[in-house]
Amino acid sequence: MSEVITAVYEVSAEDPAGRAAQVAVEQSHELPTELAPGNAVRDSLGHIRSVLRRPGLAALATVDYPVDLAGAELGQLLVLLLGNVSLQDGVRLVDVTLPARLAAALPGPRLGIAGVRALVGEPEGALLATALKPVGMTPQQFAGLAYDIAAGGLHILKEDQGLANQTWAPFAERVPRVAEAVRQANEDTGGRSVYLPCVNGSAAGFSEQVRLARREGAHGVMVLPGVAGFGTLAHAAEVFDGGMVLAHPSFLGGFTASPSHGIAPDVLFGTLLRLAGADATIFPGFGGRFSLSREQCLAIAEAARRPLHGIAPTLPAPGGGMSVDRAPELLDAYGPDTVFLIGADLQRGGNPRRAAERLAAATR
Amino acid sequence: MSEVITAVYEVSAEDPAGRAAQVAVEQSHELPTELAPGNAVRDSLGHIRSVLRRPGLAALATVDYPVDLAGAELGQLLVLLLGNVSLQDGVRLVDVTLPARLAAALPGPRLGIAGVRALVGEPEGALLATALKPVGMTPQQFAGLAYDIAAGGLHILKEDQGLANQTWAPFAERVPRVAEAVRQANEDTGGRSVYLPCVNGSAAGFSEQVRLARREGAHGVMVLPGVAGFGTLAHAAEVFDGGMVLAHPSFLGGFTASPSHGIAPDVLFGTLLRLAGADATIFPGFGGRFSLSREQCLAIAEAARRPLHGIAPTLPAPGGGMSVDRAPELLDAYGPDTVFLIGADLQRGGNPRRAAERLAAATR
Repeated sequence: MSEVITAVYEVSAEDPAGRAAQVAVEQSHELPTELAPGNAVRDSLGHIRSVLRRPGLAALATVDYPVDLAGAELGQLLVLLLGNVSLQDGVRLVDVTLPARLAAALPGPRLGIAGVRALVGEPEGALLATALKPVGMTPQQFAGLAYDIAAGGLHILKEDQGLANQTWAPFAERVPRVAEAVRQANEDTGGRSVYLPCVNGSAAGFSEQVRLARREGAHGVMVLPGVAGFGTLAHAAEVFDGGMVLAHPSFLGGFTASPSHGIAPDVLFGTLLRLAGADATIFPGFGGRFSLSREQCLAIAEAARRPLHGIAPTLPAPGGGMSVDRAPELLDAYGPDTVFLIGADLQRGGNPRRAAERLAAATR
Repeated sequence: MSEVITAVYEVSAEDPAGRAAQVAVEQSHELPTELAPGNAVRDSLGHIRSVLRRPGLAALATVDYPVDLAGAELGQLLVLLLGNVSLQDGVRLVDVTLPARLAAALPGPRLGIAGVRALVGEPEGALLATALKPVGMTPQQFAGLAYDIAAGGLHILKEDQGLANQTWAPFAERVPRVAEAVRQANEDTGGRSVYLPCVNGSAAGFSEQVRLARREGAHGVMVLPGVAGFGTLAHAAEVFDGGMVLAHPSFLGGFTASPSHGIAPDVLFGTLLRLAGADATIFPGFGGRFSLSREQCLAIAEAARRPLHGIAPTLPAPGGGMSVDRAPELLDAYGPDTVFLIGADLQRGGNPRRAAERLAAATR
């Protein structure tokens, strides 16, 4: 084989070498090799490079797949890395290495860190974001909240993943109202806050919602690859053309909840969503109400930002647990090339504008 | 609340009532209730209906969500049922009940069992299917294999989920060749076999591939909702208009691998993919190389076919482990309203046509 995609799996099995060999075949041919024609065996079969037993830990199996198996498509790369094997326990994808040619064919972020910084006018400090919620509020209520938070100086106002096209604030009414409120706040304070509506419409309605968001003055969109598909990140970036694309992890937790199965969080929320085109990637931050460790969270940030065949870096966006009190600790841990998501704390105390100002000051 | 979506969760926690209350808020407002405006608390908050402790088992928590939270959209229903909570361990979605109004707004299968039977000309017997594979074969090789299998009388020839647009057999070359081979076999034998290419292109290219498949004489498509998004089932059905839509579980296994997390297989592969529009739903059958139990598999079949607000039933399609030897056992277990997927066994022995004929005879 000339060029390969290399996947590393943690394999929990009595016979890790045998199990790894099954994975290499399952994920490529899905057919016993003696039944495959010679040209397919030569061209398109996965091969074990090594299996490392580690006492007390899962074995590490490294599998090389011919690069052409991915067909230069992100969706097929995902199928290749863990499609069928996701249905079996005891195999966890923990690392992926791609040849430059494949990396160049995948979407990657259009804006990346530099592009988002240019959009929000913040050349080097930490970036602050919040979610507009709860669902059930009226467009007027969302607009009022958005005005206060934008005026308070938060960089990014994204909508909650629970906001879609519900009767209380239909997408086509809500988005123009909130975009106008953010524009007004920016005008009143000289700020550059951006507004990202949540787009989670049906496959047919997705493009239409992205176009509406762009036309009405939003600055990008938030999408939910676990529900709407991994291709929606690049699709939204293309349709919005210049807008920021933020990935939300809703419905993706199945992959990361078990230590012996699925995908390591840094591979899923870092590498794969970056390849898929996320300018920023939300994940459950340590110390909040979700369950990733500090080490896992920092690995996500590293995967999102490390050099990768010239692909633009993605902003890690840890969610949950940010507050004025924790700002120094979190800034120190993640560094400034990070979107810090602040949730309920901003609305506690009844003065979101003042809370946003205090937080912005604490992270400067 | 008038109309509600009722979700039942298995909750593994020391304080299941407290944990369930967190779920109800996380999945609706995602904001402490004391911070939400009165109209949102009144209209759009999830409520615990009951929490049942079960000695030695996870507690059962029943949560009512106001129906309008789903916004009459399948994607938002998924976000509501398990979006954020999928990122937390110890909560498993095990049942969903929808009001008729919401069910009527969701896609559901266009063909359903009756429509697929009409398409393949098989009014009541078991339906047999196989996967065209391995990836790496040429269009000619796929066409030859497809001819043999269609001539042998298998009802449904779907492509392997590993087939996309790879160099060895690009989509636009492969699909017309295979469709023609199946047409020829049908003409030669008087059969009615159908061919379903795998469509897993990017969001932008998806519709184009479905249209190409229709134009070139395929009879529907297979889609991968775990990769391409849950909306692609209905979207494919709409674009193909009259074609069969088959759901493949690739990349969905994260939800079903852990007993204390995710989604019960009958809810995911049965109820939710049926609501999303699958005419048939592939899942890992018991006794094969995947890990669902017999009981879980039969629950999937039941969820796919049971009466559900007038929504057409979906064909369960257990994959893996079917053979001439197992045919009586599996037919007895699942009943005839089932698509039995036969994999490698069909190609073993070097005469797929003869193997298909024997299998068709064994299931008559």
